Order: sequence, then C-alpha cells, then structure tokens
Amino acid sequence: MKLYDLAGPPSPRRVRIFLAEKGVDIETVTVNIREGEHHKDEFTAINNRRTIPALELDSGVVLTEGDAIMRYIEERYPEPPLFGRDIEERAVVNNWLRIIENDGFMAVAEAIRNSIPYFENRAITGSRDVEQIPALSERGMKRIDFFFEDLDAQLEGKKYVTGDNFTVADINAMVVVDFAGMVKKEVPETCKNLLRWHAEVSERPSAKA
Amino acid sequence: MKLYDLAGPPSPRRVRIFLAEKGVDIETVTVNIREGEHHKDEFTAINNRRTIPALELDSGVVLTEGDAIMRYIEERYPEPPLFGRDIEERAVVNNWLRIIENDGFMAVAEAIRNSIPYFENRAITGSRDVEQIPALSERGMKRIDFFFEDLDAQLEGKKYVTGDNFTVADINAMVVVDFAGMVKKEVPETCKNLLRWHAEVSERPSAKA
Repeated sequence: MKLYDLAGPPSPRRVRIFLAEKGVDIETVTVNIREGEHHKDEFTAINNRRTIPALELDSGVVLTEGDAIMRYIEERYPEPPLFGRDIEERAVVNNWLRIIENDGFMAVAEAIRNSIPYFENRAITGSRDVEQIPALSERGMKRIDFFFEDLDAQLEGKKYVTGDNFTVADINAMVVVDFAGMVKKEVPETCKNLLRWHAEVSERPSAKA
Repeated sequence: MKLYDLAGPPSPRRVRIFLAEKGVDIETVTVNIREGEHHKDEFTAINNRRTIPALELDSGVVLTEGDAIMRYIEERYPEPPLFGRDIEERAVVNNWLRIIENDGFMAVAEAIRNSIPYFENRAITGSRDVEQIPALSERGMKRIDFFFEDLDAQLEGKKYVTGDNFTVADINAMVVVDFAGMVKKEVPETCKNLLRWHAEVSERPSAKA
C-alpha cells in the first residue's frame, strides 16, 4: 500500500489525520503539485485524474477519492472506529459527511478555485481545463457562512459533530473550517458551539498531521 | 421507518431503485415539491434541509442524504450486496460513487439549476436563497461531456461500472445519465461502452422505480 500525498491542501490532510487517529503508518510518496509533478507521466500513470491523495493498493488498484481511501482504511484497521460504532451512528456520520462535503468543502473550494490566479483554467481539480467563474467564488463565500451556521446549530449540546464520539465527520469538518481560512473566512463570534468544538478538535495530536 | 419521496427528481429515484434491487418495501410518504410541500411546517419539522429523499428511522433520526440512506439500507438488508462483495470491490465502488457524484451528478445539477426559471434563487437545494449563475450552467454542460467520456473509458471491457457485479455505482451512474436528458444531453455515439451499458441497466425492472 502506498499513499501519494502532499502537505498543505485539505484533501490529503484529512487522510493523514485519519491515519494518525488510527495510529497507522503507510509508505508515503510526496507529489509536489506546486511543481506540476501531478501532470507528469510518472504520476498520471498511477492516477490519471491527477489528484492527491491517491492510495495504491498492493493489487495495483488505485483509489483517488479521500472518502473511499478512508473507508478502506477503516475496514482494514477497524480500531478505533471513526465511521460510527453502531448502525445508527454510522448512518448519522454518513449523513454529515455528505453535508460537510457539499455545503462546506465545495463552498470553500468554489470560493478559492474560482478567484485566485494560480487556479486559472483549473477551477476544478483534475485533468481538464475548466475556466474560473468569479460569481461562483462570491457565491461560495456566502455559502461558507451558511455552512458555519448549520454546523454551529448541529453542535448545540453535542461534544462532536454527530454526538459523543469523535468521528471522520469531525475530521472533515475541521479540515473545511481550516480550509476556509485560505479565503480569510473565520468562524464568526456568534457561532459559539462551532468555536468551542473547533478549538477542542484542533488540540488533538492528529490535527497536526 | 418512513421514506419521504417524490417521483421525478433523480435523488429520490436512486433510493427507489436501490430498494427495488433489494426487494425491500418501506412505508412511503409523497412530498409534492412542485406544490411547495417541502417548504411547509409539516415537512420542515422532519427535514429542515427541505430536501427529498428523507428517511425517518423508528428512533426519530432523519437521514437527508441519499448516500447515507442507501448505506443504512445496505446494512439492514445486506442481500444482494450493492456496495461491493469484498474489501477491494467496496473500495472501488466507493471511489466511483464520489466520481459519479462530483463529476456527473453535480455537473447536471449545475446545468439545470442555474438555467431554468423554475429554480430562480434556488440554484442549490435547501432552505437558503441561492442565485443562479448562467456561466455555471454552461460549464456544467461541458463537464457532462467529460463525465460521459470518463465513464465510457471506465466501462471498456467491463459489464458494469466497477466490474462483473451490478452495484450502487451503476444505479447512481444510470440516474445521472437519465438526469442529463433534462438538459437534452444524450450520450454521444462515440461512447459505445456507455451506450451498451446504459441500454442494459435500463432494462432491469428496478430502473422503472
């Protein structure tokens, strides 16, 4: 098993945090996106989507989506469970994973990739040229506020996103909140639950991964 | 367990197909979105995200995301397995679910919701007003072509999206291809694998669900 990784971007970071919470070490190869290594033949032969993270299994199968990578790790290394401890907790975790991805991660990604010059013609990750849409960046900024409000409401009376246990929903949500910092979006003072939770999960050793 | 459903839109359809493949019957309540029933108190008390499908569990927990609903059904009714039959097939199914969602479903949703007058100020599902961005609709149309190309390439030499077995990846991909018809996007003649596969999965009795 080999993980293609890079420090900095949010998508590989959540996989590293997940592995740190599991206490699992995997052989890791750094792919320097800033130097365009993901567009070179050596990497596209492994992942023609040209995205990081990618997990190459011993069979040669390559997983290119963080969600699939983390579910695979969960199944191989079940302890501690990060996708829920019973059928109902798993359901709530899965539900929040989609909300965090669609309302949180996508909003921040839209805000960033449709504005800064570095992503010109690469407004969506992958191998295709996709032009930036400035109005989408603005809309993303507004949606980040909605996401902060919703997550704050969810955290009312709860230690973690889905209840008493730290799960992959907390990992993904923390990474989104930190990712929003790249477009200078801070959690507003009114979102007290979110601020309390973010401070706490950021203290975990895994957050530095 | 109670499913809030509506014939027509793609998101509830994939849950119905999934249930049909499992042979599972669930008490179903129709929420007539076209008449605004999802904005009325009776429904927002159940799902304040105002989206369909929603699955209300006997405990009162409500799942609002199709992905979480189908994973819950899979765990309660494991046969036939639709999320893969072993750890590696599950990984590949999970990987393709994210690709189908991000590259396929989101592209079609962007194309539709940012163009037709019916979705004015509701360019994203949910309770918030979100304005349409016509350029995003155009970009979505282009991304549908990319998705068709990628799915066609994946289906080369394969009976189903992830190999020999029909899975939830086939359900979601079929629903996306049919959804694209709403913006008059047909699979091009050059995508022979995709046309062959789509004709075959559309013949399954579940496709009518």
